[in-house]
Amino acid sequence: MWEVRSSSFWRAVFAEFFATMIYVFFGMGASLRWGAGPLHLLQVALAFGLAAATLVQTLGHGSGGPFNPESRERFGARGPGEVLRAANRRAAQLLGAQLGGHAWALGAETWAVAEGSREESRKIQPGVTLAQATTIEIFLTLQFVLCIFAAYDDRHNGRMGSVALAIGFSLALGHLFGIYYTGASMNPARSFAPAVITRNFSNHWVYWVGPVLGATLGGLIYDFILCPRMRGLAERLAILKGEPVADGQASPEPPGEPVELKTQAL
Amino acid sequence: MWEVRSSSFWRAVFAEFFATMIYVFFGMGASLRWGAGPLHLLQVALAFGLAAATLVQTLGHGSGGPFNPESRERFGARGPGEVLRAANRRAAQLLGAQLGGHAWALGAETWAVAEGSREESRKIQPGVTLAQATTIEIFLTLQFVLCIFAAYDDRHNGRMGSVALAIGFSLALGHLFGIYYTGASMNPARSFAPAVITRNFSNHWVYWVGPVLGATLGGLIYDFILCPRMRGLAERLAILKGEPVADGQASPEPPGEPVELKTQAL
Amino acid sequence: MWEVRSSSFWRAVFAEFFATMIYVFFGMGASLRWGAGPLHLLQVALAFGLAAATLVQTLGHGSGGPFNPESRERFGARGPGEVLRAANRRAAQLLGAQLGGHAWALGAETWAVAEGSREESRKIQPGVTLAQATTIEIFLTLQFVLCIFAAYDDRHNGRMGSVALAIGFSLALGHLFGIYYTGASMNPARSFAPAVITRNFSNHWVYWVGPVLGATLGGLIYDFILCPRMRGLAERLAILKGEPVADGQASPEPPGEPVELKTQAL
Amino acid sequence: MWEVRSSSFWRAVFAEFFATMIYVFFGMGASLRWGAGPLHLLQVALAFGLAAATLVQTLGHGSGGPFNPESRERFGARGPGEVLRAANRRAAQLLGAQLGGHAWALGAETWAVAEGSREESRKIQPGVTLAQATTIEIFLTLQFVLCIFAAYDDRHNGRMGSVALAIGFSLALGHLFGIYYTGASMNPARSFAPAVITRNFSNHWVYWVGPVLGATLGGLIYDFILCPRMRGLAERLAILKGEPVADGQASPEPPGEPVELKTQAL
Repeated sequence: MWEVRSSSFWRAVFAEFFATMIYVFFGMGASLRWGAGPLHLLQVALAFGLAAATLVQTLGHGSGGPFNPESRERFGARGPGEVLRAANRRAAQLLGAQLGGHAWALGAETWAVAEGSREESRKIQPGVTLAQATTIEIFLTLQFVLCIFAAYDDRHNGRMGSVALAIGFSLALGHLFGIYYTGASMNPARSFAPAVITRNFSNHWVYWVGPVLGATLGGLIYDFILCPRMRGLAERLAILKGEPVADGQASPEPPGEPVELKTQAL
Repeated sequence: MWEVRSSSFWRAVFAEFFATMIYVFFGMGASLRWGAGPLHLLQVALAFGLAAATLVQTLGHGSGGPFNPESRERFGARGPGEVLRAANRRAAQLLGAQLGGHAWALGAETWAVAEGSREESRKIQPGVTLAQATTIEIFLTLQFVLCIFAAYDDRHNGRMGSVALAIGFSLALGHLFGIYYTGASMNPARSFAPAVITRNFSNHWVYWVGPVLGATLGGLIYDFILCPRMRGLAERLAILKGEPVADGQASPEPPGEPVELKTQAL
Repeated sequence: MWEVRSSSFWRAVFAEFFATMIYVFFGMGASLRWGAGPLHLLQVALAFGLAAATLVQTLGHGSGGPFNPESRERFGARGPGEVLRAANRRAAQLLGAQLGGHAWALGAETWAVAEGSREESRKIQPGVTLAQATTIEIFLTLQFVLCIFAAYDDRHNGRMGSVALAIGFSLALGHLFGIYYTGASMNPARSFAPAVITRNFSNHWVYWVGPVLGATLGGLIYDFILCPRMRGLAERLAILKGEPVADGQASPEPPGEPVELKTQAL
Repeated sequence: MWEVRSSSFWRAVFAEFFATMIYVFFGMGASLRWGAGPLHLLQVALAFGLAAATLVQTLGHGSGGPFNPESRERFGARGPGEVLRAANRRAAQLLGAQLGGHAWALGAETWAVAEGSREESRKIQPGVTLAQATTIEIFLTLQFVLCIFAAYDDRHNGRMGSVALAIGFSLALGHLFGIYYTGASMNPARSFAPAVITRNFSNHWVYWVGPVLGATLGGLIYDFILCPRMRGLAERLAILKGEPVADGQASPEPPGEPVELKTQAL
């Protein structure tokens, strides 16, 4: 509760709002199907990927990326304070998506071609069943969320490079594959704005069920199989209180450290 | 005043001149519309983005990138010395843009196709109103300037990766979206040279008002909302004198540190 | 033997399985030949490259990348424990490739166009002899494996950047060149899954002989010519036992350090 | 003279030979004009850029990149030992280019289309005068060499990111612009191999004069204007003897440090 009055909380909400607005604005603007042919796909994939990279660089300082709700679904569910915060952020994000989408629509309304492109942009492609579409959204989100987790994991000490580029290119990869099938959402907020604008909610649930399931699956795989970590009670309390936790001391002897993999590097 | 006689000042002016020359030379050369179709766009966006990345890598050592006046608009207005310096740099930059543009024109003059492409290259696309064009230039510059601020902010300690690639890809993103609408300037100097060469100044003010407004907005958002910092008087004086300021001690307890975001990364 | 019961061993097997599944799933999905023309190639090359980059970022913490058997061919052959481990991992990888490929086929089966594209996707192009195809696979794998070795070599201290991007772009490079000739495998497991699905094993040996020879050649060139290192008996024993080895002390006076190259940087 | 018998010398010669072979092999292989249209250009530019990035990652540990003679022209001319070394390396490089080119030709000979593409691949485009072509090669090499110098300069301490990507993208930038005009050589060795294979040396001098002039100009600009440094006699002697020089102590008070630029980053 005390969270709501802190300035850092409202700063995070603003970042959320702002990032989603920019993300939808740029991504959908670049998706306008001005020409024809397969280039469209590469261009759209890069536009979304670079938008994500730029926003992570700009707003995601040391955090899990403020603009993807799926990656925080898992972080949020750790206590009542977190849940409240997550809900507020989610609302801010949807609002941001709405505003971003509308700003884009305002700019695009004047082109007739835009009408057609928006209609076909974010929907399930012909020939893809709903089960297939959901499965593909699960896989797209799964690889994206795993990449986010790994990129921000402070336990990895190698030459990990830029978090922003890793996340951006992972998102671009999802588009390179997924646009053919579902339009590659990986983010409910991104699909919600166009649906509202075009007033077309047919099969809209796919873009909520797929990403949420994929993100949950990714969280389970990462936390329990790939990189498990033991957390003490004190650390979990610190998380709830919003205190930074030194990862090094938190897991003095990480039982799941990939020792076997490391020896390969010799 | 003493600035004008120091060698480091003239070195900065030369870097400015040189960078803008190279930037306009490569960017506009690659913009020649040899073929048609959407590939042109991806290619042009990457050419400008990689040109910016290369120039930041070459000339922008630890600085805000010497070739974008918008990002320095904000830095410059901190005292009379700074203003003088900024004005000189601006003049050097415009001169550089002129020379770069002319060097390019010299090389391109011989192709008839170039004539057509230059005419249509840097102008507002049909169907876009002046208000829309200005709004879009504001947004393009806003995300670009925010990315520059964040990339050079020494307070971020995560895996930020290369400053050059972050800025270059942010610029490429702006082009992927903006070329459809305004030709994606984000920099008055870049639009000024083609306008002089083609003697076409119609609606040229859009490329000055949009970027300057967007950069100012970006500065306000970054400094007052996203990453506020408190500066003491001593530090501000040091800035005026051109002394390097240790950021760590400057803000012993940064009140705006995004604490809440950091705990998400656990 | 004791390896088999350790949790870190099974974690590595799972990572192997999972990574290959994702890699084949995304790579082959993006390879569907929806349109025609050379764009297909750039898009496919980037899809495979970004898939590799994402997986290295996600799963390859400080290791040689868990999903390319060729790069471990060399590491594996260091003792009976290593050989057993490598064999298990290889089996897991092939199984992963199968599952990934089948998951992809499940999704793709419904499109008629997919039928044609899978047939022609991973085979030697017309006009290329078997000797040429094998040679090209050797070269493709050679540059890829050398890049992996160098990227993970802890002796290099310069600005090496992200391991994930280095490996991903190296793989993309292989595709940009090799798709014209052999479909650019560089990995038996990746070629095995499509061959099983389409029940077409003609000339399939090329995708085993080429990569294995190329990887072996790369290992020899890197270890004995480019960056030789002397290993003591104690260190080799430590490797067999799965203990991490501090590279710094392992080679107190590296006789093959490229001293001559370093002086150039002045 | 003692250099010739050291193993590290022959290792450098081998790296030179090997890198140029791989570079020409991949770059020219990817340049085959299989289809038509402007995509060819983006694909070729990325192929050359990623080849350079991969080779720098693989072979250029802490050095100026072993495969570009232009960048070492300047380093080489510092004493008789250096000159001998540079000459030997140059010979090895040309031999490598020959072998790489021939290996490529061997693989490509069987395609009729390759005949046409090689003919037109590396020559001055119609409508470009020799003076223009030389000027453009000078500019292309200038930005490339400046980027190499800056990327390897140990005095820059910011977030410089990966040296390999910086150089690779700079090379890609050169191609995005220069292919239209001269085929974008920036490296005599690369133009020499195709000229020998096709026995077409008309205007071949452009690809030697342009890059050498551009590299020399870049060296002068970087060393005397952008980032001057004062070197003592002891340090220069150390360079001649092949000893590593600690840059930090070499220039205790670098008179040309871009102080003015740094204060902008506040």
